[in-house]
Amino acid sequence: MSERFTVTYHVRGTAADIEARAQGIAVEQSVEMPLAAIRDEMVLSDIVGSVEDIRDLGNGVFAVGIGLATATVGQDAGQLLNMLFGNTSLHEDVILKDVALPESLTQLFGGPRHGIAGLRFRLKLHHRALTGSALKPQGLPAVDLATLAEHLTRGGLDFIKDDHGLADQSYSRFADRVSACAAAVARGVRSTGHPTRYIPSLTGNLDQMRARAALARDEGLDCAMLAPMICGFPAMQALVSEFPDLAFFAHPSMGGAARIAPELLIGKLFPLLGADSVIFPGYGGRFGYSRETCRDLAANARHAGDGMKPALPVPAGGMTLERTKEIIDFYGKDTMLLIGGNLLLAGENITEETERFTRAAGEFSL
Amino acid sequence: MSERFTVTYHVRGTAADIEARAQGIAVEQSVEMPLAAIRDEMVLSDIVGSVEDIRDLGNGVFAVGIGLATATVGQDAGQLLNMLFGNTSLHEDVILKDVALPESLTQLFGGPRHGIAGLRFRLKLHHRALTGSALKPQGLPAVDLATLAEHLTRGGLDFIKDDHGLADQSYSRFADRVSACAAAVARGVRSTGHPTRYIPSLTGNLDQMRARAALARDEGLDCAMLAPMICGFPAMQALVSEFPDLAFFAHPSMGGAARIAPELLIGKLFPLLGADSVIFPGYGGRFGYSRETCRDLAANARHAGDGMKPALPVPAGGMTLERTKEIIDFYGKDTMLLIGGNLLLAGENITEETERFTRAAGEFSL
Repeated sequence: MSERFTVTYHVRGTAADIEARAQGIAVEQSVEMPLAAIRDEMVLSDIVGSVEDIRDLGNGVFAVGIGLATATVGQDAGQLLNMLFGNTSLHEDVILKDVALPESLTQLFGGPRHGIAGLRFRLKLHHRALTGSALKPQGLPAVDLATLAEHLTRGGLDFIKDDHGLADQSYSRFADRVSACAAAVARGVRSTGHPTRYIPSLTGNLDQMRARAALARDEGLDCAMLAPMICGFPAMQALVSEFPDLAFFAHPSMGGAARIAPELLIGKLFPLLGADSVIFPGYGGRFGYSRETCRDLAANARHAGDGMKPALPVPAGGMTLERTKEIIDFYGKDTMLLIGGNLLLAGENITEETERFTRAAGEFSL
Repeated sequence: MSERFTVTYHVRGTAADIEARAQGIAVEQSVEMPLAAIRDEMVLSDIVGSVEDIRDLGNGVFAVGIGLATATVGQDAGQLLNMLFGNTSLHEDVILKDVALPESLTQLFGGPRHGIAGLRFRLKLHHRALTGSALKPQGLPAVDLATLAEHLTRGGLDFIKDDHGLADQSYSRFADRVSACAAAVARGVRSTGHPTRYIPSLTGNLDQMRARAALARDEGLDCAMLAPMICGFPAMQALVSEFPDLAFFAHPSMGGAARIAPELLIGKLFPLLGADSVIFPGYGGRFGYSRETCRDLAANARHAGDGMKPALPVPAGGMTLERTKEIIDFYGKDTMLLIGGNLLLAGENITEETERFTRAAGEFSL
C-alpha cells in the first residue's frame, strides 16, 4: 500500500446514497474511470482513492474522508490542487473541507520560510499585535501613493501594503510605484526610527513576478504580496523557493467563499506553499465570514502542519480603529491589524489617525 | 470618461437593498475604499466602478451591471480576473455571470489562435463532429499509456488527450510519456492514414510548462492541454502567445471552485485567453451542468467576442457511445465528442469499440 493523505469533503446527500457518492469522489479524484476497466494491480492498490471514513454531520451533510496517494501529487503545487479538488470542484454537492498534510508534503512545499517569528524579528517587535494599512486607490499616480505611504509610515505602522488592485497599469507602473514608495517609507522610517515594512504586490506571469520580486529586493525591501488564486499555485511555489529572503503575504482575491472552506484554502494551503502571512476577510467587516471560520482560519495559519512555521493571520476588509481591542482579544497578539480605507477617511490627519491606531495596538496588547 | 466594459453579476437581495449592494460591488471591484476619502478627480471619474444597470430577475435575484475601467486591467490576464471577481468572489451573495468584452480586451488577449477551423484544417475534416478519448488511468507507466494510445489511434479517433491527472509523477514522467505516446500515435496514423492528434497535458509552473510545450513541439505535436484554473490565467496568457503554432485545449479542473457561471468562465474567458477548444462537463453525464448551461457554454465558445475565432466545445465527463446521435443533435457538428472511461471498458476490444464510435460520429453528422 502506498503512502496516502486524507482529504475531507463535506457532501450533501442521504444515508442511502452516501457510500456510493463517497466512492465516486474517490474515483473522480484519482483515476477518473470505471474501476472495472483497470487491469493494472499497482494502479488498483496504490493509486485509486480509498474511502476512509464517512460521518453523518446531520442536516443532510456528511463528512467524507478520502485517502489519496501522495505519489499522485508529484512535486507540483498545481497538481496538489488538482488532486484535492480538480474535477470534484465541478460537483455542486461537495465542499473541500480539510486535508491532513503528511510530512512528505509539508517537507516538499516547505511552509512559511519566516512566519510570525521572522516577521517580528524584522520589526524588533515581540510583545504586541502588529499593524498595517494599504496604499489605495488604484488610479493614483506613483507619486501620490508614495506621499500616502510616507504619511502612514510617520504614523508608526508596522506594514504598509499595496492594495491588491495595484498591478502594472499605465497610470502606475510597478517599477515607478515600488521605487517611489520604498523611498517614501525609508524617509518616514528615518524620522520615526521604527522599521516599517513596505509590501509591494507582485502580479503578472512567473517571469514578470520574478522580475518584480528582484526589483523589490533591489530596492531594499524584504516583503512581498501575491494572490495565489490569481497567479496560480505553481507560480507561488516557484517564487517562494527562489526568493528565500522575502516574506510572502498571501491575498485572498478569487479565493471564493463557497466551495473550498476558507480555513483550509487560506489558513492551511497558502501557508503550506510558503505564505508567511495570510490576509483574509475578518468577521464583522464587509465580508460575511463567521467568527468560527475566522477563528479556525487563524488557528490553522499558526499551525498548518507539523514542522511548519506559524504564519501571521491578517483579518481585513472593513476594520476600524474602534475595533482594535476586540480584534486583539479575539485573535490574540500574533495578528496583524489591517485598517485600509477607514484610515484614509482621516484625509489630511492621516498621520495622526495612524498614530492613534498604532498606540491602540500597543495599549490593548498589554 | 474612460473606456469601460460591463460586468454582470447575479446578486441575491431585496429591492430595498439592491442599489446600495450594487454600489458596494462597483466600489469593491475598483478602488476598494470609501469614496469620501478619494480626492483625486481623475480616480473618481475614470477609475471608480459605476452601476450601469439593475434588473429584477425574480426569486430574490438581481442582475447588476457594473462598468469597470478598461485601464485597470493593464495587460495582464491575472489582473483581468482580479478586476472581474477578485474580492467579490469572497461574498456569498454574488455570482459572476457575464462580461461584455470590449474590442480592446479581445485584441489584447487575442482569443483562439486556431479555433474550430484551424483544428478541422489539421484533420482535413470539415463535415462531421470530431471525436476524442483520454489516456488514463494515472499510475500506468508511459509504455502502457502508449499502447492504449496506439489502440485508440487505430480505431480512427481525431484526438487523444492526456487525462488531466497525468502530470509529471515519478511513475510517469512527462518527457517519457509524451515521447512514447507521440510515437505510438504516429504508428497508428501510419496504419490508418487518418491524422489523429495527441494532446499532452502541460502542468507545473510557467518555466516547466514552457519546457514541456517545447518538448511536445519537438515531438512533432501541434496540440496541448492545460487547466487555466490550476496553472493560472497569467501562465496561460504567456504560453498561448509564445507557442502560436500550438492549438490549446482548456481543461475545466478547479473551474467550479469559485462562483463563476461556467458559460462565462469556460465558454468565454478561456477562449478569450486563447483556448482553441474547451472541455466541460456535459449534461447527462456524471456532473450536474444543465442543458441550458451547456447550450450557452457551447454558444459562447463559438462566439466569445467580436473578432475572435470560434473555439471547439468538448462536452465530457461520462459520455457514452450510445449518446452519439443525441449529443450531435444537441451541440451540432462543430463539437468534439469525448468518450474516456466508457471506451476503456471495452478492454481488449478497444480498437473495435473506438471504430464503432468514430463510425457513429460520421453517420449521425449527416
